[in-house]
Amino acid sequence: MTAGAAEPAGPPIVLVVGTGLMGTSVALALAESGARVHLADRDPAALALAADLGAGSPEPPEPAPDVVVLAVPPRAVAPAVQTYQGRYPQCIVTDLASTKSHVQAEVEAIADPGRFVGGHPLAGRERSGAGAARADLFQDRPWVLTPVPATPGAAVTAVEDLVRRCGAQPVVMAPQRHDEAVALVSHVPQVAASLVAARLTGADDGAVGLAGQGLRDVTRIAASDPGLWTEILVTNAPAVRAVLLELAADLETVATALGEAGDDPDDRGHRTVTDALRRGNQGRSRLPGKHGAPPATYVTVPVVVPDRPGELARILLAAGEAGVNVEDIAIEHSPGRPVGLVELAVRPEAADPLAAALRAAGWSVHR
Amino acid sequence: MTAGAAEPAGPPIVLVVGTGLMGTSVALALAESGARVHLADRDPAALALAADLGAGSPEPPEPAPDVVVLAVPPRAVAPAVQTYQGRYPQCIVTDLASTKSHVQAEVEAIADPGRFVGGHPLAGRERSGAGAARADLFQDRPWVLTPVPATPGAAVTAVEDLVRRCGAQPVVMAPQRHDEAVALVSHVPQVAASLVAARLTGADDGAVGLAGQGLRDVTRIAASDPGLWTEILVTNAPAVRAVLLELAADLETVATALGEAGDDPDDRGHRTVTDALRRGNQGRSRLPGKHGAPPATYVTVPVVVPDRPGELARILLAAGEAGVNVEDIAIEHSPGRPVGLVELAVRPEAADPLAAALRAAGWSVHR
Repeated sequence: MTAGAAEPAGPPIVLVVGTGLMGTSVALALAESGARVHLADRDPAALALAADLGAGSPEPPEPAPDVVVLAVPPRAVAPAVQTYQGRYPQCIVTDLASTKSHVQAEVEAIADPGRFVGGHPLAGRERSGAGAARADLFQDRPWVLTPVPATPGAAVTAVEDLVRRCGAQPVVMAPQRHDEAVALVSHVPQVAASLVAARLTGADDGAVGLAGQGLRDVTRIAASDPGLWTEILVTNAPAVRAVLLELAADLETVATALGEAGDDPDDRGHRTVTDALRRGNQGRSRLPGKHGAPPATYVTVPVVVPDRPGELARILLAAGEAGVNVEDIAIEHSPGRPVGLVELAVRPEAADPLAAALRAAGWSVHR
Repeated sequence: MTAGAAEPAGPPIVLVVGTGLMGTSVALALAESGARVHLADRDPAALALAADLGAGSPEPPEPAPDVVVLAVPPRAVAPAVQTYQGRYPQCIVTDLASTKSHVQAEVEAIADPGRFVGGHPLAGRERSGAGAARADLFQDRPWVLTPVPATPGAAVTAVEDLVRRCGAQPVVMAPQRHDEAVALVSHVPQVAASLVAARLTGADDGAVGLAGQGLRDVTRIAASDPGLWTEILVTNAPAVRAVLLELAADLETVATALGEAGDDPDDRGHRTVTDALRRGNQGRSRLPGKHGAPPATYVTVPVVVPDRPGELARILLAAGEAGVNVEDIAIEHSPGRPVGLVELAVRPEAADPLAAALRAAGWSVHR
C-alpha cells in the first residue's frame, strides 16, 4: 500500500522505529493484525527483547515499508521523518508523540509534510520498555491524528488503517486543539501528581509511613520519566502554562477559605471548600469508563501461604494440574510475618475448581 | 478489662458507635479476634445491616463495655465522648476521626481526657457503608494513637490491644504531629485531586474523551464525599493551608519555567521543570509498599514464557531448586499473544543465580 494506491495490495509492511513501551506495543498489535512488521532501535538489547516478544523482525524491511511509525521523543520526530522519507521515497510517516503543533511545525520546516500524518495514541503505562509492551494497549482507546488541510487524504487513510489494526479509535483533530486538550487531561495532571509527590521529599519517615492507597493513586504517574516529560511539557508550554496557573489559583482559593472557616458549617469558608470538592465530584464523573485496560473479568482466589522458597511453585503446580491458567498473581507479605497472602486471578469459571483443588492439597483458601 | 486492671480478665467488651465503613470494619475485625462486640447507630437500617454481616450485637452492651469506639465524623466525637463516658463510668473511649488536635481540644473542654485516647486508622476504601466493610481493612496498616502526656498508660494499653486485634500496627504520635503528617499525605492530595478534576467541568467532550488511566488515578479520590471532607479539612485547617500554599507556589514555579524554556534542553527553564519532575520521582519512591512495608530493593529478572497452564509453576520450581525466594511476580500477557513476560522480583544477590538457573533450564531470560 502506498499513498497513491486505491486499494491495499496486501498486508502493509510497517517499520516501527523505537522499541520502547509504545513502539513495541504498536508492533505487537500490528503483527497480530497480520501486518509485516520490522523493528529498529538504536539500542540492540531493546531491539532483541522486542523481537523475542514477537513484535516483529529486527532486520531492515525489504521491500521498502509502506508506513514508518516513529515511536521516539517529540524533538526526535522531525529529524527522523526527514531520515526515513529520504531512505524510503514512497513511505508515509506517522509518529506517536504526545504534543502535535510543535512536531507539525518542525516537520513542515525540514521534511515533506505531504507524507507525514501526526498521531498520538492516548494509551500508556507507568512502566516503560519493551518488556511492559502489550498488544492490547490501544484497544478501544482514542488515537488522535492531526492532519493539516494540505495533508493528502490517502496518507490519512493509510495511517487510519494502522490505527484500526491496533484496535484503537481514530480521532481527527487539529494539532492546536489536541494540544489544549492533552494539557488539561494529561500534562497538568502529570505536573500536579509530580508536585504532590515532590512535597514528600522533605517529610520525615513517620509522616510518609502514614500514606495510603489514595496518595499512591494520586502520585502513581509521578514515577514517570523526567527527561521525556520535560520534553512533552516544554513542547506544549503555552497550553500547559495556562492550566497550571488556573490550578494554582484554585489551590490558593481553597487555602484562603480554610483560613476563613469558623465553627459555623454554613459560613463562607466552609461553603467555598465544599463547592471546590463538589466540582471535583462533577469533573471526576465526566471521565469515560475504563478502556484499553487488561480484561477486568478475572476473579481472585486468595490463599494464605508460608513465606519461603518453593511454596508459590507448589501452588502453581497444583493450579496447573487442575488445568487452571493463572492470569495474574499478587503477593502480599509483610516483614517478619511468617505467612503471605497470594491472590491468584483466574477466569471466573476457573475460580471454584482452583479453590477446591488448592483446598484438597491442604492450602488455606479464602474463597 | 478496665483502665485500672493489671491483666485483662477475658475478651474485652467493645461498643462500636457508627456502623459505616470504618465502624463496621473495626467491629468485624474485633469480632473475629474474639472480642464481644456491640453496635450502635442512629440509623436502624445501617445498624441492622452491620449486625447481619456478623459485626456484632445490635443490643446495648450488658455488662458495660470496656472500650467504646466512636466511628463518627470529627465534630461529633467530643459530644459522643461526653455521652458514653457519662453512660459507662469505667469505659475508655477512642475514636477513628481523621484529625486529632481539634478533637483532643474539644474532648479536654467537655469530657474526661483521662478516659479518652484519640485514634486514626490509616485505612479506607472509596466505597462507603457497612456493606463495603472488611474485617481485614486494617491488616498491617498503621493506626495512629494520640495520647497526651496526661493520658493514663492503662488507657493507651487498652486501645493498643484493640488496634492489634484489628491486625493493625499501633503508632503513637502527638496530635499536632499526626495532623501535619496527614495534611501532607492525605488532606492536600485530596484537595489537589479534587481541583484537577474540577478543571474538567468546563472542558468540551472531545477533550474529556482523551482522558486515560493516568487522569483516572490522579482523580480517583475526587469522588469522595464533599461534606465529610470539608469537615476533615476545616478541622485541620492550619496544617492543610500551609501545604496547599507551598503546592500552589510549586505549580507557579513550573508555569514560569515553561514560559522561559527555549530550544536549549539545558536552559534554566528546562532544568527547573526536570528538577520538579525528579523530585516527584523521589517523593513517589518514598511511599511504602502495599502493606506499609518499606519500599523493597528487589531486582527484576524478566523471562519470556509460553502463555499456558503450568509454565509459571515450572519457572518457580526451577527458582526454588536454585534456592531463590521469589519475592514478587508480575505477569504481562495480552490476549492472542502466544508468549507472556514474567518478571520475577528477587533480592539483588539472587538475580544472577536465578537468571543462570533459568537459562540453563532453557528459558529465554532477558537480564
